[in-house]
Amino acid sequence: MLSRLRDAIGGPDAAAAADAQRHLDGLTKPPGSLGRLEELAVRLAALTGHPPRVTRPVIFTFAADHGVVAEGVSAYPQSVTAQMVENFLRGGAAVNVLAREVGARVVVADFGVATPPTATDGLVVRRLAAGTQNLAVGPAMTREQALAAIEHGAVLAEDAIAAGADLLGTGEMGIGNTTAASAITAAITGEPADAVTGRGTGVDDAGWRRKVAVVRRALLVNHPDPADGLDVLAKVGGFEIAGLVGVILAGASRRVPVALDGFIAGAAALVAVTLAPQARHALFASHRSSEPGHGLALKHLGLTPYLDLGLRLGEGTGAALFVHLVRAAGAIFSGMATFKSAGVDGAVR
Amino acid sequence: MLSRLRDAIGGPDAAAAADAQRHLDGLTKPPGSLGRLEELAVRLAALTGHPPRVTRPVIFTFAADHGVVAEGVSAYPQSVTAQMVENFLRGGAAVNVLAREVGARVVVADFGVATPPTATDGLVVRRLAAGTQNLAVGPAMTREQALAAIEHGAVLAEDAIAAGADLLGTGEMGIGNTTAASAITAAITGEPADAVTGRGTGVDDAGWRRKVAVVRRALLVNHPDPADGLDVLAKVGGFEIAGLVGVILAGASRRVPVALDGFIAGAAALVAVTLAPQARHALFASHRSSEPGHGLALKHLGLTPYLDLGLRLGEGTGAALFVHLVRAAGAIFSGMATFKSAGVDGAVR
Repeated sequence: MLSRLRDAIGGPDAAAAADAQRHLDGLTKPPGSLGRLEELAVRLAALTGHPPRVTRPVIFTFAADHGVVAEGVSAYPQSVTAQMVENFLRGGAAVNVLAREVGARVVVADFGVATPPTATDGLVVRRLAAGTQNLAVGPAMTREQALAAIEHGAVLAEDAIAAGADLLGTGEMGIGNTTAASAITAAITGEPADAVTGRGTGVDDAGWRRKVAVVRRALLVNHPDPADGLDVLAKVGGFEIAGLVGVILAGASRRVPVALDGFIAGAAALVAVTLAPQARHALFASHRSSEPGHGLALKHLGLTPYLDLGLRLGEGTGAALFVHLVRAAGAIFSGMATFKSAGVDGAVR
Repeated sequence: MLSRLRDAIGGPDAAAAADAQRHLDGLTKPPGSLGRLEELAVRLAALTGHPPRVTRPVIFTFAADHGVVAEGVSAYPQSVTAQMVENFLRGGAAVNVLAREVGARVVVADFGVATPPTATDGLVVRRLAAGTQNLAVGPAMTREQALAAIEHGAVLAEDAIAAGADLLGTGEMGIGNTTAASAITAAITGEPADAVTGRGTGVDDAGWRRKVAVVRRALLVNHPDPADGLDVLAKVGGFEIAGLVGVILAGASRRVPVALDGFIAGAAALVAVTLAPQARHALFASHRSSEPGHGLALKHLGLTPYLDLGLRLGEGTGAALFVHLVRAAGAIFSGMATFKSAGVDGAVR
């Protein structure tokens, strides 16, 4: 399945991009004066081949636990992963609230929560194991598990696309997953552990130093191959991250835009782009997280974030906010008068 | 009227801010992890005294012409101001499109367009003159005209508030008005003309140099008093800018949030805050324009922009986009579960 997805991923349509830019330049505003909204419209047109428009956004909020929490890298206990899954299912979390604001459906999936949630109404169950192994002492998962999780994510995305989804948002929950994301980011970008490691949900100075040491140890113990995304993912990743790699590859292969959320989603994107470099054309960095590794990941991906609001929650919250900008870009593209239709004079030069 | 407005403008409610922060800290997310959305919610609560909520946003798009266009400071002919007013009235401009996305009403007012628009259905007419005088050779307007335009803007805002408006957006149209905004910004912030002057709708290098020279000349010829906002406004401002000063002061006096748009609105805010320093607590910098003077104006105002999308169109477009963030902040504040209600464990420290 992975090779099928990779083979189906193509580059942007340059002619569609040029047409979109020409259309934007005819609208009643100085050329380029809507800045990133125009760039966004052009990128969407180059990906999808039609005027930008999002009517059925879907946010994938994948949850899993991480064996690395044994190292004391999180401010919260592991029990919170399952509790937050139940909160997602009841609609009480931040991603639910922000998704409702944009009419997005949230797909909540258990990719390997340590203790399966008790309330499971509406939950998609794609459990690989009861959490990953501790990446500080060995591989987080097997290569087979990584592949299986990618496939699960891709199938969920393809099902959503078949049901009409026209924008895929990536979200996640997993106590300990900023440590995995830091390790992935260090492995693929080559940046040092202390540059890509932040405070996650809010560890103190001692916790941060422990986290940096764990990321260093994970790289030393596992020797992930930066040129092999699957190797990096299996050795220092997480099940929910692997699932998001599948969502990204499926979106890119079907030319459906993927709104990346924050740091964890950025790590999934690094893996996906290592597997299929052209996938980056389908990726939209919704925002820049306050996690320091995120900016480095986005730089490596060649993506400029649209929002910069100091968010560091994940779940898909930034992706949900970004839907407003996609809709705004679409409305500008399709709703404005042209200089000609409105009888407005052009520039004098 | 000006003194009535100034007397009614108070500071933020510190107790309401503390209550709002406490409430946010009990919601199912690490404290502060929603970054600027949380700060926005707290600022709104401190201003209004109730949970953040925007149901009836109104954007004031005030238009006027500028005598300074005689100096060749714009890429577009003066005729465009009136033509764009007609475009606003027909709903074909960017601000109309983005306002529709957030359900905002757009109040289009003629504060002194050179040639009155022919189609006037829906137009609010508050003409002070057929454009200002050329600020490069003398005062743009009299002090009486400045006061009258402020009052017109304030009355329009008060009428909207009486009709239920709970967020006021500032927008404008006026060929040549980035030159006036540059002169105001230089006068009040003390920054040099070449630092506050940008390319507006898109002048070339020669046009930019002309514009900088005009701003310098305007300050030399008129000697605006930086401590007297009314003096600065009358000497180097514009009628639509004066109208927005009125909107800002009215919003602040009624504790209704004011979403500043870009560079021109920032110049109006500089004047307003010179007249009533406490007014800044009611101001929300929707975005940072790509006009270089805007960042300097916001710094002087002590405001951090929420969006940074390279917009440089004005009209109220940034203010319209910002409504999405206000709604998101409100939804977070009022729609999320608490750690207690959701049975989610807190931090282990």
